Amino acid sequence: MNTHVNVHEQTKLDHPFLLRAWYAAALSSEVGPTELFHRKLLNVNVMIYRTQDGTPVAMRDRCPHRFAPLHLGKRQGDEVSCLYHALRFNSEGHCVHNPHGSGIIPKAAKVRTFPLVEKYGYIWIWMADEEPDPSLLPDYGPLSEGHPNGVAHTYMYLKANYELIIDNVMDLSHIDHVHGEIITTRGQLSPLVPKVVEGERTVNARWEWKQTPAMHIFSNFMPDPAGEARMFFDITWHQPANIQLSVGAIQGPGNLDLKDCVGQYDLHTTTPETENTTHYWFSTRRNHIEEDGEFNKMKIQAMHNAFVDEDFPIIEATSAEMATDDFFSLDPVLMSNDVAPVKVRRLLQRLIEQERQG
Amino acid sequence: MNTHVNVHEQTKLDHPFLLRAWYAAALSSEVGPTELFHRKLLNVNVMIYRTQDGTPVAMRDRCPHRFAPLHLGKRQGDEVSCLYHALRFNSEGHCVHNPHGSGIIPKAAKVRTFPLVEKYGYIWIWMADEEPDPSLLPDYGPLSEGHPNGVAHTYMYLKANYELIIDNVMDLSHIDHVHGEIITTRGQLSPLVPKVVEGERTVNARWEWKQTPAMHIFSNFMPDPAGEARMFFDITWHQPANIQLSVGAIQGPGNLDLKDCVGQYDLHTTTPETENTTHYWFSTRRNHIEEDGEFNKMKIQAMHNAFVDEDFPIIEATSAEMATDDFFSLDPVLMSNDVAPVKVRRLLQRLIEQERQG
Amino acid sequence: MNTHVNVHEQTKLDHPFLLRAWYAAALSSEVGPTELFHRKLLNVNVMIYRTQDGTPVAMRDRCPHRFAPLHLGKRQGDEVSCLYHALRFNSEGHCVHNPHGSGIIPKAAKVRTFPLVEKYGYIWIWMADEEPDPSLLPDYGPLSEGHPNGVAHTYMYLKANYELIIDNVMDLSHIDHVHGEIITTRGQLSPLVPKVVEGERTVNARWEWKQTPAMHIFSNFMPDPAGEARMFFDITWHQPANIQLSVGAIQGPGNLDLKDCVGQYDLHTTTPETENTTHYWFSTRRNHIEEDGEFNKMKIQAMHNAFVDEDFPIIEATSAEMATDDFFSLDPVLMSNDVAPVKVRRLLQRLIEQERQG
Repeated sequence: MNTHVNVHEQTKLDHPFLLRAWYAAALSSEVGPTELFHRKLLNVNVMIYRTQDGTPVAMRDRCPHRFAPLHLGKRQGDEVSCLYHALRFNSEGHCVHNPHGSGIIPKAAKVRTFPLVEKYGYIWIWMADEEPDPSLLPDYGPLSEGHPNGVAHTYMYLKANYELIIDNVMDLSHIDHVHGEIITTRGQLSPLVPKVVEGERTVNARWEWKQTPAMHIFSNFMPDPAGEARMFFDITWHQPANIQLSVGAIQGPGNLDLKDCVGQYDLHTTTPETENTTHYWFSTRRNHIEEDGEFNKMKIQAMHNAFVDEDFPIIEATSAEMATDDFFSLDPVLMSNDVAPVKVRRLLQRLIEQERQG
Repeated sequence: MNTHVNVHEQTKLDHPFLLRAWYAAALSSEVGPTELFHRKLLNVNVMIYRTQDGTPVAMRDRCPHRFAPLHLGKRQGDEVSCLYHALRFNSEGHCVHNPHGSGIIPKAAKVRTFPLVEKYGYIWIWMADEEPDPSLLPDYGPLSEGHPNGVAHTYMYLKANYELIIDNVMDLSHIDHVHGEIITTRGQLSPLVPKVVEGERTVNARWEWKQTPAMHIFSNFMPDPAGEARMFFDITWHQPANIQLSVGAIQGPGNLDLKDCVGQYDLHTTTPETENTTHYWFSTRRNHIEEDGEFNKMKIQAMHNAFVDEDFPIIEATSAEMATDDFFSLDPVLMSNDVAPVKVRRLLQRLIEQERQG
Repeated sequence: MNTHVNVHEQTKLDHPFLLRAWYAAALSSEVGPTELFHRKLLNVNVMIYRTQDGTPVAMRDRCPHRFAPLHLGKRQGDEVSCLYHALRFNSEGHCVHNPHGSGIIPKAAKVRTFPLVEKYGYIWIWMADEEPDPSLLPDYGPLSEGHPNGVAHTYMYLKANYELIIDNVMDLSHIDHVHGEIITTRGQLSPLVPKVVEGERTVNARWEWKQTPAMHIFSNFMPDPAGEARMFFDITWHQPANIQLSVGAIQGPGNLDLKDCVGQYDLHTTTPETENTTHYWFSTRRNHIEEDGEFNKMKIQAMHNAFVDEDFPIIEATSAEMATDDFFSLDPVLMSNDVAPVKVRRLLQRLIEQERQG
């Protein structure tokens, strides 16, 4: 894995985001074996494609000759030739063919590539100039382990700043107010003050409570579907924009974890497209009826719809109302349910400032 | 009636508009008994609703917690709870319920409210920080007096600066050129120089002329529909953006006023949504066949269409052509028909400057 | 031909374009005998119409009274009255009728006119304040000479800076990569380095090569349609934004020119609407089956479609990717095929700078 530092481009990539970090670029399933996939990430147009052995590669979606988007071009084996004047680049971004004049390849004819890691059903991208640090990609192993019908992923897009989405997930007290019957805690969640623990690059929050019956998505899988259950939420934000969420319910003895509970292991991850638009992915693995493909499809569609129909109108309207104002400059009223999201905002801000100071 | 001065928000409300003034916020009929109505006024999103006794209240359409629009929320009696995290506010903007943690209500959890007056078929709003001055709302009593089928109101929206609409109405010479047969003066109006009188917060203009036959909207109600008639227009702009217009026709002896003439008493009022978009309302009460509900509906629809189909294309194209340039900076050619609108522009500018100097 | 210099407007017309130049404003066929045609050119809204003797006139599409677009107005003979308040202007932009008050015509009531020349199937406009210089309009005589079914014109519009279109045409090496079978050189063009000659206000480039068979648009008109042919491209950019292109093929003895070859004489010309949107026209006269009207229609439609379907997606995507960055500031990789377009960019920049320095 190589970074291709380019002093000139360093300036062009300047923006308000944390750079020394792994961002989701796409689901593995979004990038087909032969297509030239493209997406704007952190204000930069990026092309992603798979070499013939399936390895994903990413490079700036801009020919260094005349700045045409490379994804409009043509694949030739593992190489891509620009549609406009047919300069051809290999998967390391080096020009390997120039059909013009004597055919000499100009020294400057190279495209910035971005290190990728494909893991947990995602293609992760490193957009900083510095050498990528594999240790900064959290371990989301459970997404990759188990029956393929027990896990599902979905992609969503919204017109809002990405930090508003992190706020949304880090303060789960909203679910009783925004969402319907299927995940209601019947008002049990809001009165709780979650236990919040801040790490070097993480913020964890945990809620434990009882409700009757259990959350609707779990109750039918419990010994007594109508009876009281103990439940937990455990969420961990990891820089730059990932939130791993575990949720489960149990009746009778046992621990409040995914080993003992009927529950699921989720990942919410976002990548800014621009300051005001965001790519948002959600993945979920459940620990019950894992082989049921029909249930799997129905459930991810229901989750997708709940986010898009119920959360997004609020988040997008809030982003529009805030316009480009800084969150804290608007003097938000902060309450006990804001502890976790506010810790995330402040930690992320510190990490960005540290990065800028070198 | 209380203002809720908030030093922080004072800054946020800064814009190029006169503030110590009553603006139309909505027609009374636009705000239903249970709905959470919302509209952007003077660059600020405002929610308006009626308490159970019918009294309208207005507050900023922004929860002070996470800035979600309150109009997305739910009514509980006279209170509104935010959809996002269920903070509940009473009609004075005070938070009365916090479902989170111990339920203590944060001191800062209040929403700025705006004083309203409901009169003449309108809900009027006061958006300045200072105590509202009821004397600044003009008397449009005739709109409220008489048979309900003798008055009608309509709301319009256009992509233009509001002063261009005031210009349009204050210079009635345009009607022979822009509008069709129904209100033509047969060229009599343009040659006249109206009598213009400027007051402390008003500009009045008056035209008197003869035409044969009378204006089409009145001629059928005259003794001799095809014969000559004496006519008048009398219009008064009152700050910030209201124009009261009286128009009538008479044959034989009598005064050129609405007591003696066949005529109507109108109100044109506008409220800036932003610098380049405007809410525009029109109301009209006639002094003939006042009980005819069918005629009433037909007539307000015809007036509405005349404005939207005939005036708006010109006003919107003009606003686009002027872009953000100041009117006087473009060196307009000013003629006798511009005396009234130019006096309005200059007086409004002086009032805004006075307000800013404190 | 008079210029109507107006010190005030001089400032308003300030923009990044060369001004002392003839730009295409419209095809002759675009401006009907009675219509009030309008188009934004170099950031200025312009109205164009024909007087009763067919002579085109151009003036600012803005009434000097209240800034309404004049093209919304009404023709009265060779005069145009504004729709809004009926000031009437003659074809020299002088107000000739004021229906208001005493009818005195205000001295300032004039509209800036722009000198026009109608030639070669186009209406050309001069938008500088200085006296127009007829010698700056190149001679495109061949477009006007010959059978009317041997020439065709088309108008196109695209969301891109106009210099990107000039780049496109000045580097013809793109045709083998972007376009299909009908004009392929079968890879012969890219390896060639064109001969490039720079003049005071022109840049000429010339390619000569052999291919088998000749370019598809010509091969059927050659003695041996499947055989080898000698071919040439000869293109001349002339300031501000015109490119004359000749292309032909020959078998056996003869010169590589349009006298001896089967070929065509084309004009590509562009006029900026704004910095990021462009009017683009293409004209072509062929020297074979000149009387065939059906072929003529079919061919111009095919050329139009090739530009719009094949070039425009690349040019518009490139313009979006470059946003408002200056071309050279992005450090383009420059190759032998860029010599001609880069010479044009640099010469145009020098001419603009010279013009600004007076």
